[in-house]
Amino acid sequence: MVYSVAVAGASGYAGGEVLRLLSAHPEFEVRTVTAHKNAGQPLIEVQPHLRSYADLVLQDTSAETLKGHDVVFLALPHGHSGALAAELGDSALVVDCGADHRLTDENAWLEFYRSEYHGSWPYGLPELVRLNGGKQREALAGVNRIAVPGCNVTAVSLALAPGLRAGVIQAADLVAVLAVGPSGAGKTLRTDLLASELLGSAHAYGVGGVHRHVPEIVQNLEGASGEKVTVSFTPMLVPMARGIIATSTARLQPGVSAADVRSAWELAYADEPFVHLLPEGSFPKVADVLGSNSALIGLAVDEAAERVVTVTVLDNLVKGTAGAAIQSTNIALGLPETLGLPVNGVAP
Amino acid sequence: MVYSVAVAGASGYAGGEVLRLLSAHPEFEVRTVTAHKNAGQPLIEVQPHLRSYADLVLQDTSAETLKGHDVVFLALPHGHSGALAAELGDSALVVDCGADHRLTDENAWLEFYRSEYHGSWPYGLPELVRLNGGKQREALAGVNRIAVPGCNVTAVSLALAPGLRAGVIQAADLVAVLAVGPSGAGKTLRTDLLASELLGSAHAYGVGGVHRHVPEIVQNLEGASGEKVTVSFTPMLVPMARGIIATSTARLQPGVSAADVRSAWELAYADEPFVHLLPEGSFPKVADVLGSNSALIGLAVDEAAERVVTVTVLDNLVKGTAGAAIQSTNIALGLPETLGLPVNGVAP
Amino acid sequence: MVYSVAVAGASGYAGGEVLRLLSAHPEFEVRTVTAHKNAGQPLIEVQPHLRSYADLVLQDTSAETLKGHDVVFLALPHGHSGALAAELGDSALVVDCGADHRLTDENAWLEFYRSEYHGSWPYGLPELVRLNGGKQREALAGVNRIAVPGCNVTAVSLALAPGLRAGVIQAADLVAVLAVGPSGAGKTLRTDLLASELLGSAHAYGVGGVHRHVPEIVQNLEGASGEKVTVSFTPMLVPMARGIIATSTARLQPGVSAADVRSAWELAYADEPFVHLLPEGSFPKVADVLGSNSALIGLAVDEAAERVVTVTVLDNLVKGTAGAAIQSTNIALGLPETLGLPVNGVAP
Amino acid sequence: MVYSVAVAGASGYAGGEVLRLLSAHPEFEVRTVTAHKNAGQPLIEVQPHLRSYADLVLQDTSAETLKGHDVVFLALPHGHSGALAAELGDSALVVDCGADHRLTDENAWLEFYRSEYHGSWPYGLPELVRLNGGKQREALAGVNRIAVPGCNVTAVSLALAPGLRAGVIQAADLVAVLAVGPSGAGKTLRTDLLASELLGSAHAYGVGGVHRHVPEIVQNLEGASGEKVTVSFTPMLVPMARGIIATSTARLQPGVSAADVRSAWELAYADEPFVHLLPEGSFPKVADVLGSNSALIGLAVDEAAERVVTVTVLDNLVKGTAGAAIQSTNIALGLPETLGLPVNGVAP
Repeated sequence: MVYSVAVAGASGYAGGEVLRLLSAHPEFEVRTVTAHKNAGQPLIEVQPHLRSYADLVLQDTSAETLKGHDVVFLALPHGHSGALAAELGDSALVVDCGADHRLTDENAWLEFYRSEYHGSWPYGLPELVRLNGGKQREALAGVNRIAVPGCNVTAVSLALAPGLRAGVIQAADLVAVLAVGPSGAGKTLRTDLLASELLGSAHAYGVGGVHRHVPEIVQNLEGASGEKVTVSFTPMLVPMARGIIATSTARLQPGVSAADVRSAWELAYADEPFVHLLPEGSFPKVADVLGSNSALIGLAVDEAAERVVTVTVLDNLVKGTAGAAIQSTNIALGLPETLGLPVNGVAP
Repeated sequence: MVYSVAVAGASGYAGGEVLRLLSAHPEFEVRTVTAHKNAGQPLIEVQPHLRSYADLVLQDTSAETLKGHDVVFLALPHGHSGALAAELGDSALVVDCGADHRLTDENAWLEFYRSEYHGSWPYGLPELVRLNGGKQREALAGVNRIAVPGCNVTAVSLALAPGLRAGVIQAADLVAVLAVGPSGAGKTLRTDLLASELLGSAHAYGVGGVHRHVPEIVQNLEGASGEKVTVSFTPMLVPMARGIIATSTARLQPGVSAADVRSAWELAYADEPFVHLLPEGSFPKVADVLGSNSALIGLAVDEAAERVVTVTVLDNLVKGTAGAAIQSTNIALGLPETLGLPVNGVAP
Repeated sequence: MVYSVAVAGASGYAGGEVLRLLSAHPEFEVRTVTAHKNAGQPLIEVQPHLRSYADLVLQDTSAETLKGHDVVFLALPHGHSGALAAELGDSALVVDCGADHRLTDENAWLEFYRSEYHGSWPYGLPELVRLNGGKQREALAGVNRIAVPGCNVTAVSLALAPGLRAGVIQAADLVAVLAVGPSGAGKTLRTDLLASELLGSAHAYGVGGVHRHVPEIVQNLEGASGEKVTVSFTPMLVPMARGIIATSTARLQPGVSAADVRSAWELAYADEPFVHLLPEGSFPKVADVLGSNSALIGLAVDEAAERVVTVTVLDNLVKGTAGAAIQSTNIALGLPETLGLPVNGVAP
Repeated sequence: MVYSVAVAGASGYAGGEVLRLLSAHPEFEVRTVTAHKNAGQPLIEVQPHLRSYADLVLQDTSAETLKGHDVVFLALPHGHSGALAAELGDSALVVDCGADHRLTDENAWLEFYRSEYHGSWPYGLPELVRLNGGKQREALAGVNRIAVPGCNVTAVSLALAPGLRAGVIQAADLVAVLAVGPSGAGKTLRTDLLASELLGSAHAYGVGGVHRHVPEIVQNLEGASGEKVTVSFTPMLVPMARGIIATSTARLQPGVSAADVRSAWELAYADEPFVHLLPEGSFPKVADVLGSNSALIGLAVDEAAERVVTVTVLDNLVKGTAGAAIQSTNIALGLPETLGLPVNGVAP
């Protein structure tokens, strides 16, 4: 069976990446693409890299155009999918690449997003370890709604959850600093996103605990540890179009050996097809995962600083967004989880 | 009076930057430039951006060629300046841009550099606050030897020392993560420094407490706090030729207010010509300081994470190396500290 | 049937890209990967982005290790494949990604490459139009030897051949200037290929008619026009890891209309799956084709300058090397030409 | 005497660069800075790299705020300086960094700029050779109006004018292709100028003779040759914040030797402080001139293609705009031409 697919927000970076990945997926057929201000244009005019969709025209983003498909991917700005999704009915699988259905805590939503709360959906990070010993993929089988995680959130959550669940690192005082590409901010006309501003430069944003990804990180990591989590989170925009490298550190639990630490991560990801712990002394580079659904983690124990240091790379548009969406969709539909998803990075 | 100057290691990035800055300095006249494998070549063949030095030819790096100048800048690989400096006599001011004379603790030197120890020299970071309430510049007046700090060290030390001296942050469990350009690694032929490897990518190095800048950071910050310091330090190489952005965080001292925190940094840098605390809510970008001797610091208090977060930018080749060298030389010679040094960045 | 494959030079950029593309190809199974100085290492240590090959170990590059496969891809430095290929026998399809078998003119080879001549092989640029009205793909069916074109050559040849065959542009005085990424130069330790040198900068090389790609361009374009071709060719290295943008211009044939010009290119590429002429007024960007086997061409007629201007983009490692190799291999083996090859770019 | 200065358009890239250079100039004192939408803000909020101007506040751009200064630099969008300049009176030296007063041919202005024509001013490219054997600097002494050239125009004009004046290259069929950074397009919110679009990519614009710099190039080169000039001009945007590398080629005049060619350029620039011909076989890189007022030219004769090939680099914001403005101002005021202008590039 081939599933019919609609992609809303097809003129943006996330929507474009969903389409790029879908073009290599054998079980999906994209029938409808929608946009807001580009509605009416051929898709290829707006996304000239998507040659395989030369015959699709962008339609308006509305419940009418999106209805009647087996799967609907929403790649809309935050705050735009909640109301729309409610109109789509239960028969379609709706996959929200935006933030609207990620947070289970209404207060956290209201504090960080300052817009109407639409409830939470099953969370599309299959490899996320949970306190009970399972992983998040168990919660995705057969669902008809998926909330795709934030890209930075995925990097930090994959990096630290194994150690928290195993109890080898402390839940308090986590520190994550990321170097990220601007595509995570979308195709947004803002001075700080201009090439002239970012080429040869870098800057931090959302400093001091105000970034919207903070409560989502806490939610994931508390799910792994069972304890209250505190995290200092700072993303820095650097001049690479896509990709995330996250240095996430945690205080070593007293009395835990370096071997115990490594075991916790090995155990968590030994059988994962997309998430890999690198051997001792190896650390990943962003190019290793560009264009792919892979995430790579390097791990060290700094005995003097009494901290575990993890370095995680992923492609914000693939494992951080579109790849996670399709991987989770595969699970929800009972397809092989890895179907249609690349594991090899486009390097150099 | 115009001082005669020799620059050893003039074919490298640090030596080139010393020369670039000296070309705008009214009190120095570069008479001699030396190199190792490029000896015999016109300087401009190796450093074609240094048009003002069109008549200089690179000589061998040796005590013979360097002797007889008022000031000698050494921009050599680590481990190469110790023995050479000893031959230069006391009449010249010798400024070592390398690591050989930075560490006061011989054991730390032996552990991290694994080569012969040559003692420590007055440390060229004038703005560094010290436990006794003074700053490092007091120790530089009239000296005939200067050890220029490491570039990453400067970023982290300037970022955290004010809070440590004021007692508003804790000395234990500091965490610094930096995004840095490859020029800090010098003109070195290594696969990971190739443009193909770094363009569109990023990677961490020296992860887990093994980077050679760790003991120097500890030395500086213990000098500010008077307590034992522990720091988790992780640099990430990102695709910008020069520049450092350092996110340095520390645990907030219990009971300290955000206003107290800000006051500590304001007090430290209020009168500094090159180091500036940005207003609340403002954070710097690397381009703001490129080519200049300025360092900019943004500061936030993350109440939920109980951490103070600082974001510091500087140009690794200027304030991180050559600018610091000349600024300290100005002090040592009794010249105006800011003489010949640019404060405006080359942006965009 | 699944063909067994060996890749020689698997530690380099071209060899790595052959492997990345082969991992998505349903009819090839990579059994052997070889290298020179990295022989003995797991492939994934040298090419950490190639996660799907986690179980392969690099062997020595020799006729012994390469023999016994259905297809052998050679991704070796120029001058290294000629002798080796001669040892591989006729039963295997040998595909040379290097220059050794591209030139049909021995004198041109000797002048530009200054090494032993090994003869020419069928040329792997299927879309290249020829004077007789056919295309190069006709010469590839069933062959057991393929010479993969140079990456810059492909860009310029695809750009200008249609106009030359149609007689709407003149064969004399072609001018091509390209901005190219450094991966085309391979994983070579050279100062001018360092990230510090190229980030924020650009430089030309092979200026004045001395670049080795000149005789190959002439060979292709004379094959399309039947006349003596002269071309001024200048590549400029710019700070993007991969990709080529070629501005190739030609003198308009007197009396030819802009519509005639456009028709020539439309006719040439109307049915091509990988090469596309963009609509009037549209010009491509490099990101449109990154990671894909597509080439895009924009076209304008400058009446005042009496020149036809083409702007062509392609990925030097895909359509410029590895993709062309696999596309030509598909043809040679009678497989669908597009099998396993991506058409959508990885953008942004 | 210190001249009082006003800078209009101080919030943009060109205005910012004028200010950066003026901060190192001993004879100018900036009293007034103006902007449009940023009026009322401290300059340093908008241009945080300009630390030396911490006490200036942006005023409205109007004749009122600009009047009463010795020198007024206009760094406004094209079409905005013509009317304003007319209000400023004759006592001030007005230097227009925009296009409004560059073209002497009203028809060319109307065709390419489609706005009101305000006449032409003395042209601020001192090194431009002229048919009569002089250079453009002779026309700048004592003037009270200066039109600063376009940045691409400067690169192509300096590259080709010497050969045209000397008659060693032909005036017909010039071809110039440039790789340029996005800062030349200003701080403009356009999708194609976003970092996500340009990082790792490149694209051409103004293809086919429609770029506004074409008539200005023709004007300059006809002034050097005395003959009708035709030029095919194509700029390509590449991922470096600033800088231009121009490959400009011309048909060799029959019977002219390579030595004659080189002599023409040597003669033109032998005594120039900012424009230099590199030795045979040497070609410049953009980083050599970043932040400086230098332009470097490499030259080759391609005998087979019968073309002279020049490769020119300059910083679009310095020698291409702000540096040219100040250099020409120095001449107009009778100051040393090089006063306050850097010749050394900020590399790497």
